[in-house]
Amino acid sequence: MTASHRLLGEFLATAWLLAAVIGSGIMAERLSGGNAGIALLANTLATVGALYILIEVFGPVSGAHMNPAVSAAMALRGELAWPMLSAYVAAQLLGAACGAWLAHAMFDLPILQLSAKVRSGAGQWIAEAVATAGLLLVVLRAPAARVAAMVAAYIGAAYWFTASTSFANPAAAFGRMLSDSFAGIAPASVPGFVIAQFAGAGLGLALHRLLGRAEPKTASETI
Amino acid sequence: MTASHRLLGEFLATAWLLAAVIGSGIMAERLSGGNAGIALLANTLATVGALYILIEVFGPVSGAHMNPAVSAAMALRGELAWPMLSAYVAAQLLGAACGAWLAHAMFDLPILQLSAKVRSGAGQWIAEAVATAGLLLVVLRAPAARVAAMVAAYIGAAYWFTASTSFANPAAAFGRMLSDSFAGIAPASVPGFVIAQFAGAGLGLALHRLLGRAEPKTASETI
Amino acid sequence: MTASHRLLGEFLATAWLLAAVIGSGIMAERLSGGNAGIALLANTLATVGALYILIEVFGPVSGAHMNPAVSAAMALRGELAWPMLSAYVAAQLLGAACGAWLAHAMFDLPILQLSAKVRSGAGQWIAEAVATAGLLLVVLRAPAARVAAMVAAYIGAAYWFTASTSFANPAAAFGRMLSDSFAGIAPASVPGFVIAQFAGAGLGLALHRLLGRAEPKTASETI
Amino acid sequence: MTASHRLLGEFLATAWLLAAVIGSGIMAERLSGGNAGIALLANTLATVGALYILIEVFGPVSGAHMNPAVSAAMALRGELAWPMLSAYVAAQLLGAACGAWLAHAMFDLPILQLSAKVRSGAGQWIAEAVATAGLLLVVLRAPAARVAAMVAAYIGAAYWFTASTSFANPAAAFGRMLSDSFAGIAPASVPGFVIAQFAGAGLGLALHRLLGRAEPKTASETI
Repeated sequence: MTASHRLLGEFLATAWLLAAVIGSGIMAERLSGGNAGIALLANTLATVGALYILIEVFGPVSGAHMNPAVSAAMALRGELAWPMLSAYVAAQLLGAACGAWLAHAMFDLPILQLSAKVRSGAGQWIAEAVATAGLLLVVLRAPAARVAAMVAAYIGAAYWFTASTSFANPAAAFGRMLSDSFAGIAPASVPGFVIAQFAGAGLGLALHRLLGRAEPKTASETI
Repeated sequence: MTASHRLLGEFLATAWLLAAVIGSGIMAERLSGGNAGIALLANTLATVGALYILIEVFGPVSGAHMNPAVSAAMALRGELAWPMLSAYVAAQLLGAACGAWLAHAMFDLPILQLSAKVRSGAGQWIAEAVATAGLLLVVLRAPAARVAAMVAAYIGAAYWFTASTSFANPAAAFGRMLSDSFAGIAPASVPGFVIAQFAGAGLGLALHRLLGRAEPKTASETI
Repeated sequence: MTASHRLLGEFLATAWLLAAVIGSGIMAERLSGGNAGIALLANTLATVGALYILIEVFGPVSGAHMNPAVSAAMALRGELAWPMLSAYVAAQLLGAACGAWLAHAMFDLPILQLSAKVRSGAGQWIAEAVATAGLLLVVLRAPAARVAAMVAAYIGAAYWFTASTSFANPAAAFGRMLSDSFAGIAPASVPGFVIAQFAGAGLGLALHRLLGRAEPKTASETI
Repeated sequence: MTASHRLLGEFLATAWLLAAVIGSGIMAERLSGGNAGIALLANTLATVGALYILIEVFGPVSGAHMNPAVSAAMALRGELAWPMLSAYVAAQLLGAACGAWLAHAMFDLPILQLSAKVRSGAGQWIAEAVATAGLLLVVLRAPAARVAAMVAAYIGAAYWFTASTSFANPAAAFGRMLSDSFAGIAPASVPGFVIAQFAGAGLGLALHRLLGRAEPKTASETI
């Protein structure tokens, strides 16, 4: 894959992810009759399905990070060239914005919005750090053939068990800031989330090292 | 497989798919107490399960397209002989109608119906184009062993994140036109959907080419 | 596996299946606040999970039929010795009864019950025939490594798209007759269901033959 | 893996599991508008996703027991050295407590709590024994490559079909005792649950022996 293929992959994957997260949130809120539990169930299932296919489809193209915290961790581990890191992050942020706008276009909403939903406080920040640490552990320790299913399952669970509904992704926070809907986050709340996410990514990397390397597996075990 | 085996396969698979989509919509609407979120959740899960097994069961017989846009794309790529294309589409449309009628028979409803549910407007058409482009990307880029799970997961997500609940299939639009129930679409809305679906299929093909070919994978990675 | 291992397997698997179907129905009805859609969603998810693990766990022991219609089809195809058929059916019926009674014990209900829920009429019978035909097609055409996931996904979908919620199993009808709860069926309705199920099994066998044999697959495709 | 890697693995996995079970219960109760069915559906999906990834991630480190009844069974079978058993159980109990406290921190609740939710009576105890027997059968008979998916699917089903919502784990009972929330259990109810769980584990081991050894499978069947 050339660099432009890879950046196009990150752009498309992140745009698609944000369209799925924001679009399903809009649909879920419209249909759920005011029951936020039903709305978040639907938002969760759509996100899980989207993540699974996006990582399968775009993984061979760009790694399907869709997430600056993951890309930074990969650069730290020598799996992403440093000069590519800023290009990856730019593609992800641009993709996130376009995904939000695409969701608005599909749902006949004003394209340009800013969320008014404040997400703040110690519990939210601990939750984002926990969510991102877990995501990094999953990404770094999943067998290659299962990483798509595992990331999808993890985020589906974390939507519910973290108090912040597990953004775990600075590009997702950026894109969701641009939508005043179910999945939105107020601009003033974004910096706290992003700091917590990078702290969590660092924690995830540290835990990964502390846990040591698993024994090499036979082919049948990794499948 | 002979041509008649393949056409029987397309007919049965599409009939079964439409019976599942329409039947589960009827059941969901009856049981959900007026909460459209619960109804669409049930409709989604039934569609996901049905798509998964239909592609596994009928894939080795006919490719399990169940979708004229997919068949047309396959013909364009040289994977379906042009003379077979119109036969495939005929089998799919006939199957779609029979599937709708079977659903009505099971639920003790009048067999022959036409939907009154208008689905129209720019948002709906953008949504159908996005949904079909995504479907094509999944179909064209999925590892062979995972295409059933990936198409099912993709459509499950797209039921929620596209404003149109992701028909993404001209045969599905045709069959659903024949049912005045939860999954229905008014005849006057079908042409707009079908045009958007073929436009989306073209977009999907174009994106597939732009993204280039992934590195060949080892056996363990494709599993 | 000896015959006694196999019969113990059928007994345990069918008991577990009926305990799961009936128990989850009781729990779902208690918790769903009168919304039958939520109740059937929960009943569906529990059945899907149970079927998946039961076929994986008991498949290598007895084939994990848990279903006289499946066992009869296997005998017709020469995959189950005729003298074993009646023993399999007896183990399944006994297991189904014990599963119902176990569910009642867990939920502090009278052990011995008969359902009062009438399930009858042409729509219901067509639905059972369709459901069982589909089940047979899935069982007969699934790759061995995926049969558990496929049967589970199929029944999960069929709970919603068939008007009868897809019993598709004479032993399940027998066990559910013994429970006056969400999953129950009145004794007078059982014969109609069982006749429709065997008719559907015959239809499934016929469709399987009509569809011909798929090309032999490479190892990577069957996985 | 060294002993300290393995104990760290059990600690982290059990902490994460309890944070997921308790955290998703809190979120589910807050969002479900008083409908316990919706709340348990969400709690189930989060637990299923968490179990799947925890067993995949921590299985190669420590076996990912997260459960003293499983560890005891493994010691009995010679798969865990007896001197490690008490260390495993200590790591699991400590992890369970920390997981409960982490959930409380994320949701801005008092860290130290005791549940007031009485869970008692013959039905509950039978349910815990059935749930744990089933868990042991799944753990002991699952193909290695599928144990994570199967345990997750099994517990997801058992949340609904056992009257106790399937704790099936003394460490989970201990951690849930420390949370006065949806997933909690009153301290006075814990001993009955734990006794039933160990009785169920014994039953599971006995059934596993009674069922005999399955024929060795070919590689393609175990995948």
